Amino acid sequence: MSEYTEIRYEVSGPIATVTLHRPERLNAFTTTMARELIDAFDAADADDGVRVVVVTGAGRGFCAGADLEGGADTFNAGEDGDPRQSVHGEIDGVPRDGGGTVSLRIASCRKPVIGAINGPAVGVGVTMTLPMDVRIAADTARFGFVFARRGIVPEAASTWFLPRVVGISQAMEWVATGRVFDADEARSGGLVSRTVPGDQLLDTATELAREIADNTSAVSVAVARQLLWGMLGSPTPWDAHRADSHAMSELGAGADAAEGVSAFLDKRPPSFPMRVSTDVPESVPQWPRLPQDG
Amino acid sequence: MSEYTEIRYEVSGPIATVTLHRPERLNAFTTTMARELIDAFDAADADDGVRVVVVTGAGRGFCAGADLEGGADTFNAGEDGDPRQSVHGEIDGVPRDGGGTVSLRIASCRKPVIGAINGPAVGVGVTMTLPMDVRIAADTARFGFVFARRGIVPEAASTWFLPRVVGISQAMEWVATGRVFDADEARSGGLVSRTVPGDQLLDTATELAREIADNTSAVSVAVARQLLWGMLGSPTPWDAHRADSHAMSELGAGADAAEGVSAFLDKRPPSFPMRVSTDVPESVPQWPRLPQDG
Amino acid sequence: MSEYTEIRYEVSGPIATVTLHRPERLNAFTTTMARELIDAFDAADADDGVRVVVVTGAGRGFCAGADLEGGADTFNAGEDGDPRQSVHGEIDGVPRDGGGTVSLRIASCRKPVIGAINGPAVGVGVTMTLPMDVRIAADTARFGFVFARRGIVPEAASTWFLPRVVGISQAMEWVATGRVFDADEARSGGLVSRTVPGDQLLDTATELAREIADNTSAVSVAVARQLLWGMLGSPTPWDAHRADSHAMSELGAGADAAEGVSAFLDKRPPSFPMRVSTDVPESVPQWPRLPQDG
Repeated sequence: MSEYTEIRYEVSGPIATVTLHRPERLNAFTTTMARELIDAFDAADADDGVRVVVVTGAGRGFCAGADLEGGADTFNAGEDGDPRQSVHGEIDGVPRDGGGTVSLRIASCRKPVIGAINGPAVGVGVTMTLPMDVRIAADTARFGFVFARRGIVPEAASTWFLPRVVGISQAMEWVATGRVFDADEARSGGLVSRTVPGDQLLDTATELAREIADNTSAVSVAVARQLLWGMLGSPTPWDAHRADSHAMSELGAGADAAEGVSAFLDKRPPSFPMRVSTDVPESVPQWPRLPQDG
Repeated sequence: MSEYTEIRYEVSGPIATVTLHRPERLNAFTTTMARELIDAFDAADADDGVRVVVVTGAGRGFCAGADLEGGADTFNAGEDGDPRQSVHGEIDGVPRDGGGTVSLRIASCRKPVIGAINGPAVGVGVTMTLPMDVRIAADTARFGFVFARRGIVPEAASTWFLPRVVGISQAMEWVATGRVFDADEARSGGLVSRTVPGDQLLDTATELAREIADNTSAVSVAVARQLLWGMLGSPTPWDAHRADSHAMSELGAGADAAEGVSAFLDKRPPSFPMRVSTDVPESVPQWPRLPQDG
Repeated sequence: MSEYTEIRYEVSGPIATVTLHRPERLNAFTTTMARELIDAFDAADADDGVRVVVVTGAGRGFCAGADLEGGADTFNAGEDGDPRQSVHGEIDGVPRDGGGTVSLRIASCRKPVIGAINGPAVGVGVTMTLPMDVRIAADTARFGFVFARRGIVPEAASTWFLPRVVGISQAMEWVATGRVFDADEARSGGLVSRTVPGDQLLDTATELAREIADNTSAVSVAVARQLLWGMLGSPTPWDAHRADSHAMSELGAGADAAEGVSAFLDKRPPSFPMRVSTDVPESVPQWPRLPQDG
């Protein structure tokens, strides 16, 4: 996919910026946007030059949620020609949830993902940010898990992600009320790690992305991301010990470990030679791309 | 069960209020109270008019824990005629823990549950609140996971709930010390979401309950409650994607989704027609009522 | 093992203090230290007089991480004679991660463990503290999950522990950046529960340890520790109900429960007779000591 119509994808140095781009609709979510987002994350993963992905919105919104221009039938997948059904396929005989295809693609990304939430993030506009590693927000941003106000349910696999990100009690309060809340409540509730004035948002995200890119091994970060998220599903730390032992054995003997230790001892910036596309050990358990592989 | 002796159950509009009612004993927990609580939650679940359950205590206490009038043998289930044994049955050859029968009943409730903790909540008095969705407290309330000070262990399935509500480190500090602590510590530790002056407690709970009842689909909230709590037990978000896809497929085609979207677009309050008793999709995984079904 | 060379182990009343003791190297971690730590926790578990274990560092550091005097080959376990390999054995055909052997030993400890972090805690110096129950820090302490800056991955089973202690988002930010951060960031991020001036650190730890030792049943605390950490791996609270029912049945009929209730009713300090070495019910699920048992 060479050109996008509802997002922008730009690479500047080690940072890929994905911009939701339907500003006239507050970047409301569509199946086209979903398809383009999945493609952009494929591109970011395939490009060893990309170390971090930043996701933000064009204009004054981040993402207002599903585009409701379909009216009362917006969420009715049984209608002929529903794009949700045709684009993302089925699972267990029902159409795959479109937001979920995006969330799971972000979850399996091999680069860390930073959400830079510049304005309203509502419905799928906020649930799609939950598999991102860090969320920062403009102090004017607003949030809402409004699903119960629309007669539907939290989607985009958020029933799994949200309690793990903010805790079950905060998750239930936001979901059961469906309330729209401000950036302060998002920060005190653990949904975003910090709030900044809107005109500093992208600089803050860039600074954080650079802190990662300038100092760390891409392979180390990719493996750590897979292990940290993946071990949320393991019953005991003994599973982690197994995985750690493999990863330490392989990466400990690798060129990045030699460079990382040498650079530290020499008090110079490291220059890591290994690449995510070729050098992630096969022993590291990975999340599936498709649910039928899960 | 038409009349209760140790609790009160009142329905006012969409709110069922369950009041622990042994004020002369700080509402200390008994097997009669356990049986009545389970019955009250059965009633709340069966009544489509009830949207939210609020649990509070009569008088100056919330619940002082197990009634210790049995003295040293209070927790000795091996004694003949122990009510714990006879009322709640056995599991794996041992008497079922009485607090656990209440906690699990609250956990499987199809309506959101708000704990309005008006005074001391100690032992089972606090562990029974952990499966509630939101806990708010009077600023004079006190809390204690005092089990290790009585020579027993945290019960009411709190070894599962507490680390998920407040995190493992805070959980271990409270449980290992068995200390009694105040409302500020409860709030900073994540056990309650807010504290208010005691005379505003029920108003605050009612306001939150009304925020849910006035704005949301009962079926959406019931399904979301089952999914959010239930997905705490799923190893990966791919499980949630499966469940979400089913729920979005069924509810997205339902009358509540049509009404929810229409009301939003019309900028009017929604009037959701679906009912929890008949319209929760069968595809939604549900928690069992009895442990032998678990 | 009667004498230690890289740690100190002292028992004073009910408190065993383990001091990392290579002050000239900021207590950098070695396989000798790992072996001695495991032995010290064996000693603490075997001694019924020990109620709480406090871990701290000698001199101005807590633990600077793996000793890098091996230079670029520090983490290369494939070299002949690597002590990581020879000391801790293999798992699935690769050398067991040395930090993991310590973390898992701490995780299976039957006494609560308090980390008193007096100075820099970096790499394995901080990951080894994650299975401790409470972490308090000197306000001058510093922390770093620096693995990605060295070309390796978070070890010591921290991919399991860290997200459970501080949440997945904070965990990913610290791991992906590998940044070194101060005590305030550690506290606001949930890594330590409080910070105190350095000269009050051990007093604060001792006070907390005494609060446990003076008031609680050792058997109750041991069983609660196993259940709380262990239930992090159970999919539903029904598992906890089973375990609770067994534990309440056995401990409720025990001498500590009789003493705990009697002491409370008599308003006197309890004197619990039961011992961890002999009186922990066999029904309580326990974490394995070795990963091959896991």
